[in-house]
Amino acid sequence: MQVAVIGANGGIGRELLPRLADAGHDPIGVVRDESQFEAVRDRGGEPRLGDLEGDFDEALDGADAVVFTAGSGGSTGADKTLMVDLWGARRVVDACVDADIDRFVMISSVGAGDPLAGPEPLRPYLVAKRCADDYLEQSGLDATILRPTRLTDADGTGTVSLTVDDLDGDTAEIPRADVAGAVVACLDIDRTVGETMHLTSGETPIERALCGDD
Amino acid sequence: MQVAVIGANGGIGRELLPRLADAGHDPIGVVRDESQFEAVRDRGGEPRLGDLEGDFDEALDGADAVVFTAGSGGSTGADKTLMVDLWGARRVVDACVDADIDRFVMISSVGAGDPLAGPEPLRPYLVAKRCADDYLEQSGLDATILRPTRLTDADGTGTVSLTVDDLDGDTAEIPRADVAGAVVACLDIDRTVGETMHLTSGETPIERALCGDD
Repeated sequence: MQVAVIGANGGIGRELLPRLADAGHDPIGVVRDESQFEAVRDRGGEPRLGDLEGDFDEALDGADAVVFTAGSGGSTGADKTLMVDLWGARRVVDACVDADIDRFVMISSVGAGDPLAGPEPLRPYLVAKRCADDYLEQSGLDATILRPTRLTDADGTGTVSLTVDDLDGDTAEIPRADVAGAVVACLDIDRTVGETMHLTSGETPIERALCGDD
Repeated sequence: MQVAVIGANGGIGRELLPRLADAGHDPIGVVRDESQFEAVRDRGGEPRLGDLEGDFDEALDGADAVVFTAGSGGSTGADKTLMVDLWGARRVVDACVDADIDRFVMISSVGAGDPLAGPEPLRPYLVAKRCADDYLEQSGLDATILRPTRLTDADGTGTVSLTVDDLDGDTAEIPRADVAGAVVACLDIDRTVGETMHLTSGETPIERALCGDD
């Protein structure tokens, strides 16, 4: 499949491109700036320009699936959270609907299920992620929503723990590499369509976890 | 009708309470702080505490309709825009669904139909308003969404101009008093249910404008 990664030069995006290529997909790395093209190519992706606050539709040309991992984490201003994590995500969902790109994997966040239960500084971010998730869910696309715990740059382990219920976002962690591994596995496992799954470090091989085998 | 006004001590809320009372309704003025109770009573409302980031469900007890006019305008931080204008609005919509309060009037904003076409500093606010409007539209409630142009404190004129299409939010203005007048009229005019209407100063008496007679 041609898989367009929105936010290809972000922490998860950088882990994702080579894993997609290794799995036999053709990754398209969508980035905001041509200066990031080389980094995308180095990771096996075809670089394309896309601006979530401007034009990006052409970046999706030919894609069979889209992974949305653009965004600010909880650290940039809430204005950008609204424009990128929420409105940008909605625009990508709309573009997929328009272009008949059915498969969509959203990188969300633990705590998005109940933003007011989260740590106060993170709540605005969790609201934006939740609203983007809801918009995707209602879009009719074949969607998978992944809600990882706190992201780290540790080496991937190839194993995770996966739950339907929300996880403790204060203490639990997961390497970005394992989130990327879960995205690749999702694209191959039909039962992840229509699911919202919470993801943290654990002992279950990723593919088995996503197949529902503990 | 008992009409709960969320944001009763805001600019539109203050204009709305006495107009609701004059029209024979029983206004409930929902405010964040007991220090605002006296001001609500002075305007003919029954004051109740409600915190959009905390507890507010009891503030809606017995209400037949809800008007949402809480929020920050474009001037507070985008974090509060996410928590109040967007998440607060969603929570009030959910509470109305749960309590079988069918009638809902949302004070939105011109430009919410196409946030990226708005002035850059306002875009995050317009995204939040748009997402709240969409959530209300999909709720199944009997909803009216009013999108006024720039609000002023000028005296009300009793006349407006009303359009389905978006208006120029840069230059057009409307007194808050006339927005409040339009809310009261909406509650009496069934054909406003399910409608999103843009509102600015004009020559048409409010009730006639809302009835679709130019």
